Amino acid sequence: MPSGTLLYAQSGGVTAVINATAAAVIQAARARKVRVLAARNGILGALREELIDTSRESAATVRALAHTPGGAFGSCRVKLKSLEADRARYERLIAVLRAHEVRWFLYNGGNDSADTALKLSQLAAEFDYPLTCVGVPKTVDNDLAVTDCCPGFGSAAKYTAVSVREAALDVAAMADTSTKVFVYEAMGRHAGWLAAAAGLAGKTADEAPQLILFPERPYDEADFLARVQRVVDRVGWCVVVASEGIRDADGRFVADAGAGKDAFGHTQLGGVAARLAGRVHDALGLKVHWTLPDYLQRSARHIASATDLEQAQAVGRKAVEFAFKGMNATMPVIVRTADAPYRWKIEAAPLARIANREKKMPAGFIRRDGYGITAAARRYLEPLIRGEAYPPYGRDGLPRYVSLRNPAVPRQLPAFTD
Amino acid sequence: MPSGTLLYAQSGGVTAVINATAAAVIQAARARKVRVLAARNGILGALREELIDTSRESAATVRALAHTPGGAFGSCRVKLKSLEADRARYERLIAVLRAHEVRWFLYNGGNDSADTALKLSQLAAEFDYPLTCVGVPKTVDNDLAVTDCCPGFGSAAKYTAVSVREAALDVAAMADTSTKVFVYEAMGRHAGWLAAAAGLAGKTADEAPQLILFPERPYDEADFLARVQRVVDRVGWCVVVASEGIRDADGRFVADAGAGKDAFGHTQLGGVAARLAGRVHDALGLKVHWTLPDYLQRSARHIASATDLEQAQAVGRKAVEFAFKGMNATMPVIVRTADAPYRWKIEAAPLARIANREKKMPAGFIRRDGYGITAAARRYLEPLIRGEAYPPYGRDGLPRYVSLRNPAVPRQLPAFTD
Repeated sequence: MPSGTLLYAQSGGVTAVINATAAAVIQAARARKVRVLAARNGILGALREELIDTSRESAATVRALAHTPGGAFGSCRVKLKSLEADRARYERLIAVLRAHEVRWFLYNGGNDSADTALKLSQLAAEFDYPLTCVGVPKTVDNDLAVTDCCPGFGSAAKYTAVSVREAALDVAAMADTSTKVFVYEAMGRHAGWLAAAAGLAGKTADEAPQLILFPERPYDEADFLARVQRVVDRVGWCVVVASEGIRDADGRFVADAGAGKDAFGHTQLGGVAARLAGRVHDALGLKVHWTLPDYLQRSARHIASATDLEQAQAVGRKAVEFAFKGMNATMPVIVRTADAPYRWKIEAAPLARIANREKKMPAGFIRRDGYGITAAARRYLEPLIRGEAYPPYGRDGLPRYVSLRNPAVPRQLPAFTD
Repeated sequence: MPSGTLLYAQSGGVTAVINATAAAVIQAARARKVRVLAARNGILGALREELIDTSRESAATVRALAHTPGGAFGSCRVKLKSLEADRARYERLIAVLRAHEVRWFLYNGGNDSADTALKLSQLAAEFDYPLTCVGVPKTVDNDLAVTDCCPGFGSAAKYTAVSVREAALDVAAMADTSTKVFVYEAMGRHAGWLAAAAGLAGKTADEAPQLILFPERPYDEADFLARVQRVVDRVGWCVVVASEGIRDADGRFVADAGAGKDAFGHTQLGGVAARLAGRVHDALGLKVHWTLPDYLQRSARHIASATDLEQAQAVGRKAVEFAFKGMNATMPVIVRTADAPYRWKIEAAPLARIANREKKMPAGFIRRDGYGITAAARRYLEPLIRGEAYPPYGRDGLPRYVSLRNPAVPRQLPAFTD
């Protein structure tokens, strides 16, 4: 049996299935009789020595964690700088890990977290502190390098495709006397993965979404408006999916274009969908509605993808395996071995190949006209939203999501002033 | 066997389960060997003599209709005026019904549709045209008079409560370094039923949503902002649910308060959530996110309430039964006979008691402080979101929603110019 403690932490925007990864980590470590601590609010908990003892949670609660969205231990948006610039914080981390006999550190996040885990492994080596750091992939943005896809993305993608198909049925039914254009704003500041997933909702040019706006292509307002009008003329209505990160030819975010103050001097928080809807209303005179699902899209465990859930659990189990094998500075990544039938496996990749990189959508995934997805994109995306993985529901009609007790581990060190 | 044709039409905003009502109508009429036509786009299809022959759809397709959101025959936002003011249109309706030997007219909608069905029944009597008009209840707004609840509401309510609970788990996990306030905008221009349903997501004062804004109570900005700050101080984060129809003490819609033009002279489409988020940002300096689910909330068949689905089908079946019994100018309404265990039955109510009325939320459903729901509201709401009624999914990971062929019935009359 390995000796020592495993520390697990969640980082960045949480997802519908990151807790499924957490559950798999805890279960795999428990099976090897290893104590698992969790850091409260990601790396901040490690810095502040705010650690949680997971051994107090029952096996049933840990199982329920697998169907609970959000981040059960808290997450954070904090990026550590270089070893030189942030040396005091990295050294503090080593001190906390040492005080709690942490031999394995699992950091569940995206590009930045991979970087933190990598740097921590380097500093531990420098200090001769025996530590194995393993990154665990997670992000709804699907922009992590090396891995074929990221746990969290498939569920958000399924939410997106299902929601767009449903809303389109509503719009189609009402278009004769009501809304003719509907705009859906998808997450994705730099890469259009979720906007692309919306493309799965329709198979033909006349099915919704008829127009997708990707951050990978410059937004051309005149061309966009002309296309909306053509779709409305042909189909009777039009559903637009816009990535929050679209920019005009000068590189300005469309979401920022109309931001400012209203007549009362109050901040106008707009967003891309509101902006596009305003243009459709003004320029085309068409009745328009829009939606901004925001966090709903990344927390929708009720419509999680079974593929995504399975992969989220698999990377958690493999991360523990890699850790106990001493595979330092690695990450379990998903390798696709076949599209149809879809097959995948988990392999180890060095964190150095992942840290601080960003995976863009392949150019071949965007249709030549720039407003839709290709067959190659469908082949890639479709397996990721396949299968349903419903949470159990209570008599109150709501999912039985669990809250952990998250008891604090007694501090061993003085407080850290950052 | 009754002789003649049954005409069915959908009206107003469509819902996740209005097609389940349509399916039940078709099935019940088919069982009596009665031909069912549907009007394309609600009453407009009847005026324009754009009728659909439903007999061409297979039994399997009609069954699939029960799990397909939207309005399969098209709906409309059209309100006919009084018999005097709109006499030509009412007479045209009678002419179309007569030309297609329609003996039973079922209008599936809200308050306005009940009014149209009532007036049509009056004119038919005046003309000695044998016609039985039956209203069939439907609306996500739950504001129909007499009936205990409206088919369509329960599913939108379940979507709302589940979505708020999920998003709150996301916000709670990130609040330490990210968003501290999240605003969810619920449908409901005049009555806060859907905002109230969000209240089911939490059981205690510290669980989300900590603050609900109802259109039944004037919006007091200073009081609201102070409460948001107090919740953030106490809990660390705050989820607000706001009804789109909230108004200030002077009766002005909050959604309209910031509307106007941006620096480019373009229309700013705001909405309540964007507005409140802007105020929280400016006045409290807290990081805020918001969501506007818009049509997603009323088309979310993927998270439909089993209770709602059952009631949507029951009112369809009963409407056919009432029609064949000649129960003219009635509507099948839902009567609650017990809260726990929840029991209900269908009874007939006269359209005259329903047409053009609006059911407000009982004052006893809103907490004394105005920002939450009472135990009485929970007793009323909870059974309506109970049970899951998932659509079947395909290998593509999407619900198997059907499209009807909707073949046109040959016209018998000259075109009607309105």
